[in-house]
Amino acid sequence: MALDGIKALTFDVFGTVVDWRSSVAREINAVAKRKGWTVDGAAVADAWRGLYRPSMDQVARRERPWVNLDVLHRESLEKVLAQFGLRGLDAAELDDLNRAWHRLDPWPDVVAGLTRLKTKFILATLSNGNVSLMVNMAKRAGLPWDAILGAETARHYKPEPETYLSTAAYLDLKPEQCMMVAAHNGDLINASRLGFRTAFVPRPDEHGPGQNRDIKPQAAFDAIATDLLDLARRLGC
Amino acid sequence: MALDGIKALTFDVFGTVVDWRSSVAREINAVAKRKGWTVDGAAVADAWRGLYRPSMDQVARRERPWVNLDVLHRESLEKVLAQFGLRGLDAAELDDLNRAWHRLDPWPDVVAGLTRLKTKFILATLSNGNVSLMVNMAKRAGLPWDAILGAETARHYKPEPETYLSTAAYLDLKPEQCMMVAAHNGDLINASRLGFRTAFVPRPDEHGPGQNRDIKPQAAFDAIATDLLDLARRLGC
Repeated sequence: MALDGIKALTFDVFGTVVDWRSSVAREINAVAKRKGWTVDGAAVADAWRGLYRPSMDQVARRERPWVNLDVLHRESLEKVLAQFGLRGLDAAELDDLNRAWHRLDPWPDVVAGLTRLKTKFILATLSNGNVSLMVNMAKRAGLPWDAILGAETARHYKPEPETYLSTAAYLDLKPEQCMMVAAHNGDLINASRLGFRTAFVPRPDEHGPGQNRDIKPQAAFDAIATDLLDLARRLGC
Repeated sequence: MALDGIKALTFDVFGTVVDWRSSVAREINAVAKRKGWTVDGAAVADAWRGLYRPSMDQVARRERPWVNLDVLHRESLEKVLAQFGLRGLDAAELDDLNRAWHRLDPWPDVVAGLTRLKTKFILATLSNGNVSLMVNMAKRAGLPWDAILGAETARHYKPEPETYLSTAAYLDLKPEQCMMVAAHNGDLINASRLGFRTAFVPRPDEHGPGQNRDIKPQAAFDAIATDLLDLARRLGC
């Protein structure tokens, strides 16, 4: 495992760095309490996240012009609330709930792990989240990114190659000087095909109890770590 | 002075945050010593910087496709070395010297000032420097940016309005929620016309002894501070 040429770690964020499901469920439950809704916040979070891929695919297929993830999340939110029969939010309340995605909590190892990794590597987001979402999340959670890159600065959503390649190019690095860090096999396999090194950090609780995907690595990744502190150890930080 | 709606400070970097002239001169002098050149590093730095505006203007006038500042600096370096009659650098040495712009030292107040300002505001670059230049500079100097934005992510050089407006848009902020911080009257006047708040932080030593420009504010800026620590005090950080 020749890892000595790596200059930057590029991170998937939703699921890998932050626990979107518990965080969004918490916000849904708080709104439900205020509005007198009877609903399972985690089920709403799952349904909302379920519209993530289809909404980005519309952009990828050029069925609509580029819009960032805040816009897609907002449209999906209205669909999900209708689906669950949840009513009574005005536009400002919808906007605020939509920004639940800016207020996601990191997994417990993340801040300490990133802080160690940052001593040796450039740390960049390579997420489908938009810049303001990533910046607001980082400010709130204390994530010490060196650069916020990914879909919005590439104007392409993962898994389109441009998202990965643009991130390396902004850093003036070759793909093989970048290591993609993700909890998702598909993301790592896509990055690997473009020349990135890969680190798999499974998050077996991302999807809640009974998660049956992305528990184990499905390819020969360059590093496999239990969390970001373990990754720091493995990379000599 | 109603400054309470400000969410982000957007920074000019060359001159405002870092002392490009002394830093580049130091690197030129080091190369001169190795190569046996007799030359004043500061004079070469001034000449190199002198080609900055004309090189970006070519891009702005669409006389050539977008290229980032590393590319422009590299072209300008070859012209300047020829002008001074300095020979003997191979391509790798030219590339390394070009990256002197990634290794600029901050003014003495900067790290402490930014660290205080970061507790209350989003700190973003709004520079003509490219992303990798800004990231490498920040890693070396310890500049705690929340986001690296500006010319390369806008694909437009200042003073084109897109550079400023794109930076605010990436942060999902209105121009009036952003305060441009710069040592240059022109930069602030341009930002102000687009709705940005403005903070003038003069750097009377930027151009070395006898500097006669940008010593005093030439418009009614929202804040005038002696350095970034003074700005932090004025903004309640």
